[in-house]
Amino acid sequence: MIFRQLFDGASSTYSYLLADEASRQAVIIDPVDTMVARDLQLLQELQLTLVYSLETHVHADHVTGGGLLREKTGCQTALSAAAGVGCADRQLRQGDSIEVGGIALQVIETPGHTDGCISFYGSGRIFTGDALLIRGCGRTDFQSGDAGLLYESITQKILSLPDSTLVYPGHDYRGFTVSSIAEERQLNPRLQFEKSAFVAHMNGLKLDNPRKMDVAVPANLACGARK
Amino acid sequence: MIFRQLFDGASSTYSYLLADEASRQAVIIDPVDTMVARDLQLLQELQLTLVYSLETHVHADHVTGGGLLREKTGCQTALSAAAGVGCADRQLRQGDSIEVGGIALQVIETPGHTDGCISFYGSGRIFTGDALLIRGCGRTDFQSGDAGLLYESITQKILSLPDSTLVYPGHDYRGFTVSSIAEERQLNPRLQFEKSAFVAHMNGLKLDNPRKMDVAVPANLACGARK
Repeated sequence: MIFRQLFDGASSTYSYLLADEASRQAVIIDPVDTMVARDLQLLQELQLTLVYSLETHVHADHVTGGGLLREKTGCQTALSAAAGVGCADRQLRQGDSIEVGGIALQVIETPGHTDGCISFYGSGRIFTGDALLIRGCGRTDFQSGDAGLLYESITQKILSLPDSTLVYPGHDYRGFTVSSIAEERQLNPRLQFEKSAFVAHMNGLKLDNPRKMDVAVPANLACGARK
Repeated sequence: MIFRQLFDGASSTYSYLLADEASRQAVIIDPVDTMVARDLQLLQELQLTLVYSLETHVHADHVTGGGLLREKTGCQTALSAAAGVGCADRQLRQGDSIEVGGIALQVIETPGHTDGCISFYGSGRIFTGDALLIRGCGRTDFQSGDAGLLYESITQKILSLPDSTLVYPGHDYRGFTVSSIAEERQLNPRLQFEKSAFVAHMNGLKLDNPRKMDVAVPANLACGARK
């Protein structure tokens, strides 16, 4: 398998390219619209055909590159049915599978950061979006965020995966690129709480809204189309 | 093996942590002084003992964390004998090997960006510092840089490694994290030239000096000690 982690410094967002070596079919997870030229060049250089552009959720801090990628490559876009993005080609639900060449990514619903958050699990990796971050987790104070639900998603679903599963998050702000399930279970400071204390902690955070939220959310609900 | 790529956004520098799972012994390549607290915390969390802090060269854009790591952990520092850093614990030469637990990194002299540049090769990966970058290469206009020498280092030494070898550079400015020898041989735009054209191209670049050069170079010649 071809695997590339790609970074957008402006929003500290990770995008992920996975491709099957034999068929040259590819998926991208959480592309950023301002980085689409880079991503298209990489696809072309590696002689890959993009089949799916996947979203872990409706982002509040950057505009998805999914719409542009669909326009340029003819790929399909897909995200959670619960995200309310009618323009997406495929509406994903718990247990669905994205299959591209020899790659299979299982959809795991992991709501709490938003009500339409999903993670993708396959090839020994989980792409957690903003549910589980490295030594942290997504905020729960907007977009129907729910700290109790996020606690359940992380502890019951994500952390039930095998210890050695690599955790690839949607963001990192300190320069970490990857973690593992064992590591996050043991070391993530927010997961050392019981549920009620986790909820109180999350609900007590006083965070500014993301700078680009007013542009990003409407654009992402429209598959990346900016007004 | 435990392997972590770590990023410093301020200087777009990659540091690398490699550790042997059984012995918990670790090496770090190209640590950044402002990120040492993060790196020390990671070492402690993963219960690793740092044996070596390695440098690919005397950096001009950031101050090494090697001196601080030596002070805090008792590790040894090591870089090329040609770098002229007398305070380093070990002076490395072509063919030397860094061995830590089950990890062996072979030293390959790859001068040209500076006269004291080395790459580290092992476990299917090459850490190229600023010699070979993803789709680019290090500049050659200061610190005894020599475009002809860099061309020879890249084409004769680095690109002679197996195609599938993963290339981990010292920097990336566009959000790429990794490449491969096959990919760089085929796709690196600077390596599609003959030597004379490469030298002319590199010598014709008009680049500003790195912002922190006047602080970084003297500090790095003193193992990270700032004046």
